[in-house]
Amino acid sequence: MATTIVDMKDSFASENDLLAAKLKVQFREQGVFVVNILGTAGAGKTTFLIGLLEALRPRKSYVIEGDIASSIDTDILRRLGIDAYQINTGGTCHLNAAMVGGILGRMRIEGPALLAIENIGNLICPVEYDIGENARVVVSSVPEGSDKPYKYPAVFQTAGAVVVTKTDLIPYVDFDLDFFTKGVRSLNPSAPLFQVTKKERNGYTPVADWLRARIQESYPTNGIV
Amino acid sequence: MATTIVDMKDSFASENDLLAAKLKVQFREQGVFVVNILGTAGAGKTTFLIGLLEALRPRKSYVIEGDIASSIDTDILRRLGIDAYQINTGGTCHLNAAMVGGILGRMRIEGPALLAIENIGNLICPVEYDIGENARVVVSSVPEGSDKPYKYPAVFQTAGAVVVTKTDLIPYVDFDLDFFTKGVRSLNPSAPLFQVTKKERNGYTPVADWLRARIQESYPTNGIV
Repeated sequence: MATTIVDMKDSFASENDLLAAKLKVQFREQGVFVVNILGTAGAGKTTFLIGLLEALRPRKSYVIEGDIASSIDTDILRRLGIDAYQINTGGTCHLNAAMVGGILGRMRIEGPALLAIENIGNLICPVEYDIGENARVVVSSVPEGSDKPYKYPAVFQTAGAVVVTKTDLIPYVDFDLDFFTKGVRSLNPSAPLFQVTKKERNGYTPVADWLRARIQESYPTNGIV
Repeated sequence: MATTIVDMKDSFASENDLLAAKLKVQFREQGVFVVNILGTAGAGKTTFLIGLLEALRPRKSYVIEGDIASSIDTDILRRLGIDAYQINTGGTCHLNAAMVGGILGRMRIEGPALLAIENIGNLICPVEYDIGENARVVVSSVPEGSDKPYKYPAVFQTAGAVVVTKTDLIPYVDFDLDFFTKGVRSLNPSAPLFQVTKKERNGYTPVADWLRARIQESYPTNGIV
């Protein structure tokens, strides 16, 4: 009987997709659920992450912070007792699976756990790079304006959930939530849309409920949440 | 006597630098001063541009709007009577000299004139791409937070001027102007730092004065401003 040798690499669109698939296998074996957080510079990704972890209270969690430079966000998270690790890309505008794989070697992750990864601040480059995540959350802040889905469609199209941050600023800026929602819906009919502000901690409960359900779908019995 | 043939291409770091140098020659011959406006998504680049043109009142001006998708900003500018043209990059996170050269063919620019180019919304990719500009202005909004120079150093390092926008939001957010200024100064000791809000049109006068001086340095007699 003839042996068929299948080169698995051929079925991946890129080297990154291959590495991301390897990460997914590793995370699955460890019982780690991974959420990839995307948003522009200053959208409030770190503040959102803190509110989300407080509302979700996973049994164990780790954070990877992506930035061009500095460890400002990692320092903030560590001061709060969160187990956070910094990737500095120098000038690269996205994280990739190789960078995530690289830092995992230093992290000694023990599952079951949640791993939240805050990507590099922009709405463009991170879209194309799978970093082994189970879910992708796009954060878009009120002062950025309600036209972002129209100007940066791909990131909203690939979102598992969309979170509008800094809603306490709505009285002071031009932000048309209907226009924003219409833009998201035209690209992505199914992603839930949440609104949060750091001034109202209860607002994080619906996002945490959504993420808890996603985690339990992936790991019905391992007790991350 | 021997003829020395110099391959000029060797002295340019990249194809883009070569094309940018050609644009600079073309702009110089036409008497066109070019300002390249950088900032993250939602920083208020278009609003800044409108305020700047109103305060500067150049004899003639053109605008190129860079976006991944949509013509929202170009439509806004045209409704104000500004001669604006849209580049959509699809997914590319910066403009380059080839894109600018391409659209110039459709614009029929007549100098002396100011050409303002609003780059793609992010603080990372546009840094590396000379698009033939005389001056680069970096726009950073108050709600983004005061840590941006520390997280995205290169864009502040290469700025000709830095403009803090949306200063009317200072009472409602955490923004430490001293920390921001210290970050900019550590990277760029000479770039002037301006503060503007669309609610106070007078705030644009110092930026317009700065740009007028730069234009008159480049073109002492052609009367753009």
